[in-house]
Amino acid sequence: MSSAAKTNAGNFFEDFSVGQVIEHATPRTVTEGDRALYGAIYPTRFAVPSSAEFAASVGLSAHPVEELIGFHVAFGKTVPDVSINAVANLGYAECRFHVPVVPGDTLRTSSEVIGLKQNSNGRTGVVWVRSTATNQRGEVAIDWARWVMVHKRSADSPAPETVVPSLADVVAPEDLVVPAGLDFSSYDDVAAGEPHRLGDYEVGERIDHVDGVTLTDAEHMMATRLWQNTAKVHFNTDARPDGRRLVYGGHVISLARALSFNGLANAQLVAAINAGAHVAPAFAGDTVHAWSEVLDTVTLDAPGVGALRLRLVATRGRDESMTLRGDDGTYADGVLLDLDLWALVPR
Amino acid sequence: MSSAAKTNAGNFFEDFSVGQVIEHATPRTVTEGDRALYGAIYPTRFAVPSSAEFAASVGLSAHPVEELIGFHVAFGKTVPDVSINAVANLGYAECRFHVPVVPGDTLRTSSEVIGLKQNSNGRTGVVWVRSTATNQRGEVAIDWARWVMVHKRSADSPAPETVVPSLADVVAPEDLVVPAGLDFSSYDDVAAGEPHRLGDYEVGERIDHVDGVTLTDAEHMMATRLWQNTAKVHFNTDARPDGRRLVYGGHVISLARALSFNGLANAQLVAAINAGAHVAPAFAGDTVHAWSEVLDTVTLDAPGVGALRLRLVATRGRDESMTLRGDDGTYADGVLLDLDLWALVPR
Amino acid sequence: MSSAAKTNAGNFFEDFSVGQVIEHATPRTVTEGDRALYGAIYPTRFAVPSSAEFAASVGLSAHPVEELIGFHVAFGKTVPDVSINAVANLGYAECRFHVPVVPGDTLRTSSEVIGLKQNSNGRTGVVWVRSTATNQRGEVAIDWARWVMVHKRSADSPAPETVVPSLADVVAPEDLVVPAGLDFSSYDDVAAGEPHRLGDYEVGERIDHVDGVTLTDAEHMMATRLWQNTAKVHFNTDARPDGRRLVYGGHVISLARALSFNGLANAQLVAAINAGAHVAPAFAGDTVHAWSEVLDTVTLDAPGVGALRLRLVATRGRDESMTLRGDDGTYADGVLLDLDLWALVPR
Repeated sequence: MSSAAKTNAGNFFEDFSVGQVIEHATPRTVTEGDRALYGAIYPTRFAVPSSAEFAASVGLSAHPVEELIGFHVAFGKTVPDVSINAVANLGYAECRFHVPVVPGDTLRTSSEVIGLKQNSNGRTGVVWVRSTATNQRGEVAIDWARWVMVHKRSADSPAPETVVPSLADVVAPEDLVVPAGLDFSSYDDVAAGEPHRLGDYEVGERIDHVDGVTLTDAEHMMATRLWQNTAKVHFNTDARPDGRRLVYGGHVISLARALSFNGLANAQLVAAINAGAHVAPAFAGDTVHAWSEVLDTVTLDAPGVGALRLRLVATRGRDESMTLRGDDGTYADGVLLDLDLWALVPR
Repeated sequence: MSSAAKTNAGNFFEDFSVGQVIEHATPRTVTEGDRALYGAIYPTRFAVPSSAEFAASVGLSAHPVEELIGFHVAFGKTVPDVSINAVANLGYAECRFHVPVVPGDTLRTSSEVIGLKQNSNGRTGVVWVRSTATNQRGEVAIDWARWVMVHKRSADSPAPETVVPSLADVVAPEDLVVPAGLDFSSYDDVAAGEPHRLGDYEVGERIDHVDGVTLTDAEHMMATRLWQNTAKVHFNTDARPDGRRLVYGGHVISLARALSFNGLANAQLVAAINAGAHVAPAFAGDTVHAWSEVLDTVTLDAPGVGALRLRLVATRGRDESMTLRGDDGTYADGVLLDLDLWALVPR
Repeated sequence: MSSAAKTNAGNFFEDFSVGQVIEHATPRTVTEGDRALYGAIYPTRFAVPSSAEFAASVGLSAHPVEELIGFHVAFGKTVPDVSINAVANLGYAECRFHVPVVPGDTLRTSSEVIGLKQNSNGRTGVVWVRSTATNQRGEVAIDWARWVMVHKRSADSPAPETVVPSLADVVAPEDLVVPAGLDFSSYDDVAAGEPHRLGDYEVGERIDHVDGVTLTDAEHMMATRLWQNTAKVHFNTDARPDGRRLVYGGHVISLARALSFNGLANAQLVAAINAGAHVAPAFAGDTVHAWSEVLDTVTLDAPGVGALRLRLVATRGRDESMTLRGDDGTYADGVLLDLDLWALVPR
């Protein structure tokens, strides 16, 4: 019996079919240990995940962890089945946070293949999946669509019928899920750290989050491993010709989100991720900064609650000009991440 | 609307006035995750914070975390408001640990400005604050005085009236707070690791704690971030001309305290910090050692409880001669930290 | 009073006598924080320790942490008394995991000296100990035998009577402890990540676990410190002539065990360690891979439960040939660890 019979080489483009549902291993229980590690690895200070008292003061019956903890845990499960043989992570859409994740919750993730398109080179193809993370009560915690470019096992395999799913550019405000009980009508600005509320932000406004963090290999590996993400390039210096460990894109997302506290301290909860592009790779030694652009502001029905649609941009080095793209329309040098999200804020 | 309107640049010398009270963001809940991370980052082995059973055996109704976890969390909150524009952290005084911090407690911190003195150069000034950390029941967990040298926004600003507070050189033994229920009368020396009790220590005695730890950037950044300390110099290689990340002074305090186990294993609880000086900066690659000098020994009223006043000195490299100062009275080469504290020990 | 009177220099060969029992400091409470840190430091994905729901689904009444967390915590306590003056860690035998360790448990460890043999050079000797870790209810959690080569304080000390204990080469299957309630009869292969059960493994089969992890100093120090292991060579670049920090052998064990998920995902619980050799030292920068050889398969009485006896080998760099020894019988270049263990699997 060969060892190949036991180890999981992951799926290649030929292994996916539209409508296929993959139940991902391994369920994982989220704990206060995850919250602490998240706070050790990312400079987060948002009052809701930081303080059980603050969370209770805004109507939450339990103390949720950062939405991105849930996202990374849920996402990590998809890697061995969906993207272990990926060339590139192409995009996200329609990511919504439903029931908050609290310590003690066990998450499992399944993915449905919703699109396939072989590339003209015959060697790779694009796979679209919709992934759903559920908790131990079967409630949806997070769902999202994602598309990745995956290697074919063989260039000789026939191309599947092309199916390109229709995905929204942005989650409609009426589809945003507000956690049960959330009530910002007695919101404590002082404890939260900033006075700015929904009405203080204007569409088009850009905010330089000022602070920067220089990456280390130990930290990004610990984070990525915590999410049980198994992509070799993050851990193994032999996995890339340059001998460098590629930083997990989600690490940059969490870093940028945490840095955005300075100027967006009241963007307490991430409600949705509309789109996301990992524009350039990041490595140990890079100093990551972030800036945000306000894309939209809406009032929601929950008491005192509004939502900010934000473009969150991570850069290598600080760019005080906050330039997203050059004159030629391509991303400016140094841009690492271009993320479009909805955050819940007091109004 | 400019981004400067949203981000917090912190306070400059002109922004402080005597009597001013600052409520610091963000409240933070301490968890078992913090205890675990503290144990991963510092080589601590003190039996009370290590073992819930041991803590119960000495009369504590819940399992406190290390006092320095509470201190760092509480201190971190003051950084954005008090010392983000500091030139130097000049000193501590009158730091007392009141109600023990246990997992589940949420700490918030406020500071009162108790002194101001512009420096003769007109560009900086010294700010004294008294900070108080309270838990979710409003009980005082920790309070302390601290003074920092802060930049002025403009050399042209007028000097405030000079107010220099009167601070005690040492917390009087009768002012030390012994945690409710603490009873060392059935203390288990074997479980604690050493047989030495109050009466075994002599004033003037010096103890070389032998072990050393070589610093890494990942570890000190994780610790400092865990305390939500935002000082740029700890995280960002662009923040200093030499491109090095300055180790948070509190990291050296915790490291020295943990190293002091070897020789002071029974100095179970820190009751007070009388004074502290960060004598020299520490960086990744430095190997930190520690030694202690016994400054005083007192018997307290609680059953079996005494207190040791200790000078805890951290050094770069081991100094078996345990020399604090040279013949000229200045600190000896390699001294990083000179800390004066009270610890509770069995008698 | 000299400082030598206070610090613990550890035991030398002369300090051990057959029959001596050493109660090790410090008891330590295991928490969810330990589980999270373990998952951040090692790429573990085994479903039982990962998911409280999965653990409950196989009959466990509480959510055990990885067996190796218990082992490292229990082992760490022995270091200051047994091996702080060791030249080499020579071997393990008869290590069994009894009552599972769950968050909230407090472990303490004692060791009995069961053998002594002075080496012919007169400068060192071998000490055999049997160590037992018990929880707060006095139940045995783990026990094991271990032998180390320890320095003598003086070459002039007389040799003790030689006593070499008789230790089993392998824990007999009937002596394996199956956790109370364990029932694999409704085992969920999909959630666990692989379909392979006891009957799918053949004696002699080798499995290349494919993935690799490049070591960093920060990570191995954090792990080793978490276990309160005080051996200087792991933390202090001054402790070895080459200025490198030696990676704790247990770090390599945990890394190899975690990597073995890929091909052995259903080897859920470690029931025993039969033998172990740290063949070569590991350092930051080394990329660790692992492969396993199936040594035996047995059916146990518990419902649905079997056991795999596995040789788990860690290597520096990937060895797809899975070569343990060269033609001359010595370990092949690159072998770091040769561990012989029993794991519980569904049948």
